[in-house]
Amino acid sequence: MIAEEYRKMLGAKSVIREIFSYGSERAKEIGRENVFDYSLGNPSVPVPDKFTRKMKELLDRESPLTLHGYSPSLGIDSVREAVAKSLKDRFGLEYKKEHIFMCSGAAAALAHAFRAVTVPGDSILTFAPYFPEYQPYVNLTGAKLKVVPPDLKGFQVDFEKFSQMLTEDVTAVLINSPNNPSGIVYTTETIEKLAGIMEEKAQEYSHPIYLISDEPYREITFTGVDDPYIGKYYKNTITCYSFSKSLSLPGERIGYVAVSPQCEDAAVIIEMCGQISRGIGHNCPASIIQLAVADCLYDTADLSVYEKNAQILYTELTRLGFEIVRPGGTFYMFPKAKEKDAVSFCKRAMKKDLLLVPGDTFGCPGYFRIAYCIETEKVERSLEAFRKL
Amino acid sequence: MIAEEYRKMLGAKSVIREIFSYGSERAKEIGRENVFDYSLGNPSVPVPDKFTRKMKELLDRESPLTLHGYSPSLGIDSVREAVAKSLKDRFGLEYKKEHIFMCSGAAAALAHAFRAVTVPGDSILTFAPYFPEYQPYVNLTGAKLKVVPPDLKGFQVDFEKFSQMLTEDVTAVLINSPNNPSGIVYTTETIEKLAGIMEEKAQEYSHPIYLISDEPYREITFTGVDDPYIGKYYKNTITCYSFSKSLSLPGERIGYVAVSPQCEDAAVIIEMCGQISRGIGHNCPASIIQLAVADCLYDTADLSVYEKNAQILYTELTRLGFEIVRPGGTFYMFPKAKEKDAVSFCKRAMKKDLLLVPGDTFGCPGYFRIAYCIETEKVERSLEAFRKL
Repeated sequence: MIAEEYRKMLGAKSVIREIFSYGSERAKEIGRENVFDYSLGNPSVPVPDKFTRKMKELLDRESPLTLHGYSPSLGIDSVREAVAKSLKDRFGLEYKKEHIFMCSGAAAALAHAFRAVTVPGDSILTFAPYFPEYQPYVNLTGAKLKVVPPDLKGFQVDFEKFSQMLTEDVTAVLINSPNNPSGIVYTTETIEKLAGIMEEKAQEYSHPIYLISDEPYREITFTGVDDPYIGKYYKNTITCYSFSKSLSLPGERIGYVAVSPQCEDAAVIIEMCGQISRGIGHNCPASIIQLAVADCLYDTADLSVYEKNAQILYTELTRLGFEIVRPGGTFYMFPKAKEKDAVSFCKRAMKKDLLLVPGDTFGCPGYFRIAYCIETEKVERSLEAFRKL
Repeated sequence: MIAEEYRKMLGAKSVIREIFSYGSERAKEIGRENVFDYSLGNPSVPVPDKFTRKMKELLDRESPLTLHGYSPSLGIDSVREAVAKSLKDRFGLEYKKEHIFMCSGAAAALAHAFRAVTVPGDSILTFAPYFPEYQPYVNLTGAKLKVVPPDLKGFQVDFEKFSQMLTEDVTAVLINSPNNPSGIVYTTETIEKLAGIMEEKAQEYSHPIYLISDEPYREITFTGVDDPYIGKYYKNTITCYSFSKSLSLPGERIGYVAVSPQCEDAAVIIEMCGQISRGIGHNCPASIIQLAVADCLYDTADLSVYEKNAQILYTELTRLGFEIVRPGGTFYMFPKAKEKDAVSFCKRAMKKDLLLVPGDTFGCPGYFRIAYCIETEKVERSLEAFRKL
């Protein structure tokens, strides 16, 4: 019989997708250039040419049987080695091939990480505001997502509440820095304090607590921002990475799980990812995409537009009296709405063809998200709509 | 804590992979050309040029932001439409976009299909000999795989045992025709009888029983073989397809779920696949691969080598006194071993550098699988080793 669990999910449509659909309809009426669509986190700068060149080179030079052949279930060996080396070069941790599992984007990385370190009934603790997809991602593993209320001063961590909520049933803490939707980057101080509390509690409960670090925005940080590499600060760290934003490749579904070499069970967790993969039908990202990305591990798309847009919007919106915690990275910011109900605020904005997402979606009512991954020229033109609002 | 369920799976290594690894080691000693590796089902003919040309055209002509952008969660609309049209053109069923869910290969297709029509505790019934990965695929959904013993006369269906085992807890029947490992294609008569029994039992139990048809070998059938399109014979059919074998693209992870247009809940099941996808972190096959494959829906790699190899091996091995059900497709055959214990038989073969897989792996002891997706020249040279054996 049809599984009711999934059928029921069909009723709960994504707010973000609905706003985006409205925008597409509206664009047909008044022209796409007149809709200020800040709803979706879709990269707005192209993939580096190097990636395209490598793809064509692979198609021209490799034997098709090798190129399109089965990838080992943990990923192509040379690709895993290259990823490990790049992480070691960049962040100084002794990553080896054995610590890397190639997978199809951050969603897949999280799906494997959650299953590796929880069993049904366990809890995963995360922090508001948070990416709303965490709910179905976690729920469908049989674990439970618990959300620490937001630190509204700076969108760092409310440590008092975190300590209270880090109970014995929690086997993993899930963080996302640079953060969607706030754009905030956790400081070294935050990470150190977080790690300290987790170590203490793990000892108290006599079971490990894993830090699952969701890092699709790792490469998008702004000038002068303190952006610690999280795996360095806590030994049981499982890093979930995606190339979607750094290389502007969201449709090609490519990322990895990297278990910190300091983690005692690192290699076992990676091997387990291969088994989890069988159970959920994942079986590797596309071979050619793995090989092409392995050539771009020290590259990014030209991400400077995001910082530029952030600056323009932050300056103008604060001038207009919006309260905003200044983003340290990503292509999001998360101002306080000008009325208590952010949903009605965003509806008013929609009437000015300004598409914003209410913070309720991210577990943080009263705020709204601006996804400023659009052309700078359009950001500038949108300011008038903000003024009117 | 580490999930013991997956850790335990690490102990149970795949027999096929072990034999393959032995072959790779042996190849280093005596040269790859002297190891007759019949262990792995890896295509041995290249992808059609058309695919490669389309990939390069996409890279050259499309805007990278569109090309590599997010695919909708059910797959790119134009690709789903093209797949539906090709199925309609080829098999006459009224498939529409709404009946197609693009996914990363047959493993992913099955992962979604199983979850859509079972809940933990339900049973899925399949037939020996069967692809061994069905066990972890099903087990990790929480459902139970039950296996109908083989019909040793022709590797069709033992209907008496099937009827007995089709109890009320069974919500899905899983078939694989053309079959791995037997190479057999279910006849129209088999499918009609199977469908008849399923309809009867569904009525008796007052709940639907879905037919999940795993069809990665659909395009590999031999001259004159009766190969009915299964979706035509039973309305609640969920077809799971992969382009891995037909286009020789196993590493690129691309396939689809097609729910028969006759199925009352067809569109709902497809929408549910999108939700299941969120839960298991699947989120679509790579965009560029979707777009390139959509251009090759009426093409295949040159699959004629498989029929040629089948003929040579069947003729020679029956001459040598092996009992074999003549394969109707795929690149497998499944002869009876020359001794009762197929494992020890395959070990003896290994000493002659002939790599075969014992039938025990496929739920059918006493037989062995030959995966003859290798060059014909090598097949011919291997005959001497069979003779000695």
